[in-house]
Amino acid sequence: MKHIKIALIPGDGIGPEVIAEGVKVLKAIEKMDSDISFSFTTFPYGCEYYLENGRMMDEDGIEKLKEFDAIYLGAVGYPGVPDHISLRDLLLRIRKEFDQYVNLRPISLLNPSLTPLKSRTEEDIDMLVIRENSEGEYAGAGDWLFPGKPEEVVLQTGVFSRKGTERIIRYAYEEARKSNRSLTSISKGNALNYSMVFWDSVFEEVGKEYPDVKTFSYLVDAASLYFVSNPERFEVVVTSNLFGDIVTDIGAAITGGLGFATGANINPEKAFPSMFEPVHGSAPDIAGKGIANPIAVIWSVSQMLDFFGESNWGKAVLTTIKDLLREKDYHTKEIGGSASTRQVGNRFVEKLIKSMSP
Amino acid sequence: MKHIKIALIPGDGIGPEVIAEGVKVLKAIEKMDSDISFSFTTFPYGCEYYLENGRMMDEDGIEKLKEFDAIYLGAVGYPGVPDHISLRDLLLRIRKEFDQYVNLRPISLLNPSLTPLKSRTEEDIDMLVIRENSEGEYAGAGDWLFPGKPEEVVLQTGVFSRKGTERIIRYAYEEARKSNRSLTSISKGNALNYSMVFWDSVFEEVGKEYPDVKTFSYLVDAASLYFVSNPERFEVVVTSNLFGDIVTDIGAAITGGLGFATGANINPEKAFPSMFEPVHGSAPDIAGKGIANPIAVIWSVSQMLDFFGESNWGKAVLTTIKDLLREKDYHTKEIGGSASTRQVGNRFVEKLIKSMSP
Ligand SMILES: CC(C)[C@H](C(=O)O)[C@@H](O)C(=O)O
Ligand SMILES: CC(C)[C@H](C(=O)O)[C@@H](O)C(=O)O
Repeated sequence: MKHIKIALIPGDGIGPEVIAEGVKVLKAIEKMDSDISFSFTTFPYGCEYYLENGRMMDEDGIEKLKEFDAIYLGAVGYPGVPDHISLRDLLLRIRKEFDQYVNLRPISLLNPSLTPLKSRTEEDIDMLVIRENSEGEYAGAGDWLFPGKPEEVVLQTGVFSRKGTERIIRYAYEEARKSNRSLTSISKGNALNYSMVFWDSVFEEVGKEYPDVKTFSYLVDAASLYFVSNPERFEVVVTSNLFGDIVTDIGAAITGGLGFATGANINPEKAFPSMFEPVHGSAPDIAGKGIANPIAVIWSVSQMLDFFGESNWGKAVLTTIKDLLREKDYHTKEIGGSASTRQVGNRFVEKLIKSMSP
Repeated sequence: MKHIKIALIPGDGIGPEVIAEGVKVLKAIEKMDSDISFSFTTFPYGCEYYLENGRMMDEDGIEKLKEFDAIYLGAVGYPGVPDHISLRDLLLRIRKEFDQYVNLRPISLLNPSLTPLKSRTEEDIDMLVIRENSEGEYAGAGDWLFPGKPEEVVLQTGVFSRKGTERIIRYAYEEARKSNRSLTSISKGNALNYSMVFWDSVFEEVGKEYPDVKTFSYLVDAASLYFVSNPERFEVVVTSNLFGDIVTDIGAAITGGLGFATGANINPEKAFPSMFEPVHGSAPDIAGKGIANPIAVIWSVSQMLDFFGESNWGKAVLTTIKDLLREKDYHTKEIGGSASTRQVGNRFVEKLIKSMSP
């Protein structure tokens, strides 16, 4: 019997609405599989909490969350709370404090109708981006000198440690080897003459231990172009924190938008909880209307199940998503339909149950 | 009589082949317009020069180039010479030494057949990206500590000065006002807590002087997505050196690739020469075959003429490019045709002359 303790952070805007559908899916699975169980504890952290308490989470929030196996997060962000507070003090803080140094972002075309690209099929767009998630450009190091003076100058320092760089690159090589796919590194050695030259050297060095893995190395500008013009080139991709942030949004663009983008922030050693989240924001403009697209948040369930070794369930969820997307009646407004968030979630559960019964 | 002294740096790979066509266009214009003349001096700088001399340019190369009004550059880069040498010591060095702090990159769909996006027209994709070109992430500041030790750590520092940030943002506001277009700033304040928070504050502050200019501010990840999903949102765009590098390549992707991307590196005060270049690389795989696409390098001519106040000519060149692209017989291999570089150049000149005769 496997038990997974889940901390829910529904967060802001559409977060609670979509998370509810994800929880529905997990509960359905629990019902179908007597070998798995989940428990859920909800935390009210987010921008509303901030407006009331002046903090994004409890003072001992990190301590509290540490008890869990997984964090399932909806969305964070709210007009009136600056992003650099709401995100640095919640989302980015969790990633860092729990050493969730691997951000797994699958970029897969779930249905050919979703891509804005001419004549692209599911086979053309199917990659896994592995983003460094604990340091690099996001280290938060810097300085702001002579404020208000003509000589004012602001410094932002990316921090690339041997440990941090090597472990993400090694993780990516392992993944590529395991799945028998090529590995592409995205960097920018021609302009970022310290960090990215270092990155490239580690990529090459670690690669010596993986002579069986076919590798490519692209500059981030070229890679960004190829994501659009030649997405079929990419299988497993490894890149830095900032570049991963950017290219996965291009990935979202070519697969139908952020409503179809999921991310797993994982600590592979399971020393700390890992976090699963749709990549989309809180979308305050449509919050509370019950029309948000829950596909990304359900896809996060698939990633969660994969991570906890339940890859049969992970696959079943993903397959059911693809099946569901073929049913126009269950498209939300985002993709031209009129189904509600809840209708999509319910239909999903219905189909998942059906697909599992003999 | 306007005389423009041009330093040619054909450079590597396909550089010389395409530059030859650009020069052809300039000479044709000189013939047609008795009020303009050009002189050309060729410099052999590039990777071959490096392999012979151990330097990318003469020791006093910068001094020599300083005498010119414009530098017209083909392409730099060659297998065997590391990019961080070939580019930092030639292209990036010229940008920096001549304080070419504005990089103007028009992203315009020249012909609807060129975009990989579904049902997009010329009207949808027509923007000007103004990239900071002298500092920021490209400052080259950093450190590489404890090499080879477990505690090895590499630092890369972006440098955002008040002067550098304000002048590019001001330039962009002026451009938006002049052309009566909206201005979009691309930054990343939610993660880059010094540099981009500063950038955003300068964007807002300078904006107070331009209440007539409609503004937007996007995070770089969201902007990268919108370049693909909603390019019609962008008119004038201002962004940092690195972000400009990335988003203009996405811009190239949606307009047909790097064969259709030009960039002007300008010093608006004309205290130093400005540099005009196609954005594409040296493409060693097709070098010497005479099949490279010269459209980008000809578009650079248009930018050069605009910069020197000859906007009638600038427009004529751009219009003729669009006309020419309607003739399938003059498509190069890159876009499925079989015309040679020279055939395209010759046909272009033919058409330009024709368009100018009453
Ligand atoms: C919200 C923001 C801080 C975050 C990031 O930049 O990592 C988001 O864009 C993401 O991709 O998860
Ligand atoms: C070649 C490289 C250094 C350069 C840059 O990064 O600026 C190029 O990509 C560009 O966009 O002009």
